[in-house]
Amino acid sequence: SLGKGSDSDGNAYWEISKNRRVSSSTFKGSTFINIREYYTTADGESKPGKKGISLSIEQYNAFLQIIPELNASLHSQ
Amino acid sequence: SLGKGSDSDGNAYWEISKNRRVSSSTFKGSTFINIREYYTTADGESKPGKKGISLSIEQYNAFLQIIPELNASLHSQ
Repeated sequence: SLGKGSDSDGNAYWEISKNRRVSSSTFKGSTFINIREYYTTADGESKPGKKGISLSIEQYNAFLQIIPELNASLHSQ
Repeated sequence: SLGKGSDSDGNAYWEISKNRRVSSSTFKGSTFINIREYYTTADGESKPGKKGISLSIEQYNAFLQIIPELNASLHSQ
């Protein structure tokens, strides 16, 4: 099963694949939901990669609201 | 309210902000869920930008599964 942890800044993350994580973070007083690729350095450290997106809470909530429609669309394919 | 539509390839999308979309697409027989920034060209066309990530169905399902924990974590901040 996939891992859950917290990074060096204390932000919780959940793995959605071996090299992709969903996490939350706070920047200048605002919370963001990050969906991002990670890679492992030669010394075994996990670092964020280029591919990914950070959603504001408003964008994340908009995403949560469209999930039922999105799922219905996927299941009808 | 935010828009819903389908792009020039016929893929459904949902706006989660003025310039960000969630969409599904099929590539080489596999379905992907895309969360991506869009920009508008000078002639009014919407084009995908650099920021974004395309999730496989497995990654999307893993994401759906962690949402309750993620939300609980957000609400406890």
